[in-house]
Amino acid sequence: MILCDIGNTTFHFLENELDFKREAKGFDPSSVIEKVYYISVNESFENILKNLPNWIDLREFIDWSNYYESMGIDRVVACEAIKDGVIVDAGSAITVDVVTDNRFQGGFIYPGIHAMRECYKEISPRLDYSFNFELDLDKMPKNSQDALSYGFLKTLYLEVIRHNKQIYLTGGDAPAFFNIFKDAKVDQMLIFNGMKKIISRIS
Amino acid sequence: MILCDIGNTTFHFLENELDFKREAKGFDPSSVIEKVYYISVNESFENILKNLPNWIDLREFIDWSNYYESMGIDRVVACEAIKDGVIVDAGSAITVDVVTDNRFQGGFIYPGIHAMRECYKEISPRLDYSFNFELDLDKMPKNSQDALSYGFLKTLYLEVIRHNKQIYLTGGDAPAFFNIFKDAKVDQMLIFNGMKKIISRIS
Repeated sequence: MILCDIGNTTFHFLENELDFKREAKGFDPSSVIEKVYYISVNESFENILKNLPNWIDLREFIDWSNYYESMGIDRVVACEAIKDGVIVDAGSAITVDVVTDNRFQGGFIYPGIHAMRECYKEISPRLDYSFNFELDLDKMPKNSQDALSYGFLKTLYLEVIRHNKQIYLTGGDAPAFFNIFKDAKVDQMLIFNGMKKIISRIS
Repeated sequence: MILCDIGNTTFHFLENELDFKREAKGFDPSSVIEKVYYISVNESFENILKNLPNWIDLREFIDWSNYYESMGIDRVVACEAIKDGVIVDAGSAITVDVVTDNRFQGGFIYPGIHAMRECYKEISPRLDYSFNFELDLDKMPKNSQDALSYGFLKTLYLEVIRHNKQIYLTGGDAPAFFNIFKDAKVDQMLIFNGMKKIISRIS
């Protein structure tokens, strides 16, 4: 069984517990002849995949009554993976989703590291600093780099920890945010685990 | 006595308790012959103003030991205006500064409304929504507009209110944020009041 999480820039595969990535640009899904269960946020492959009978979209096997229509399928599937907790998926955007007793409670979207840095820089070149992930979150900042880092990180931190739940960190920037969410479980297999759970229900 | 708060785009004057603005572009400070006490974050006027003896920079009359060198003079002067509280100055950036017993405790910088909206839009055109300031901050969102609004507003809200202090709202976007900080004092004269306090100490 092959699983594939299709993002805007990559096809992320899991085959025999081994994961690997292929660049989306130029990738030909018909080159895969095995059965592939997939989720996709990449609209440009929608029509191609629809016409390949060995590529099975997991979207239709989800009980959407818990979620909302415009919610990213990657967020939904990550939620399906856990019974209880807060999922922080730190990529180009940071999505934060709360699950209680197997039910999605709601979630929010926050800018990712790169986007937020560009955002500050756009406001003023004086706000062009990298973020300090070793920042003391208990202390109000008294220098520019920390004033920006605190604005980006402490605000997010407070809203995430107030739920008093296990935090699951995933996404490309999970290692950086592990400095902030020190009790989090870093789990890069969250989406694949959610996909497996859905597949086990349908097969 | 004329006071002037010089920003990147405007000269904001206060004369006889009446405030008015002039566009910075094309403005000639030497056209003012009265004595003007000013603060400025606008570097392009630095040399011109230095050579006008009736324009008095209040920067040099501040006890900087409480603050840090790269801190915006507008933030410093707003802090000088109050004895105790949290100042939220909502402009192109949102600065949040805490003052206890007349002393600056530290502060942070967060993106303003326009910058944050552009930031989300840059991440994905699917994140192009205006913010909902009537959002219920006690409820985790289950739709896209609220997921973004909550990401922008709830995070900021939690960090501001945790200080349990009087909130002073100022800046161009203060009216919008009054929906979020319902117990805040909206005070557009905060910077001028800080300037007056500094002047009273030196004269």
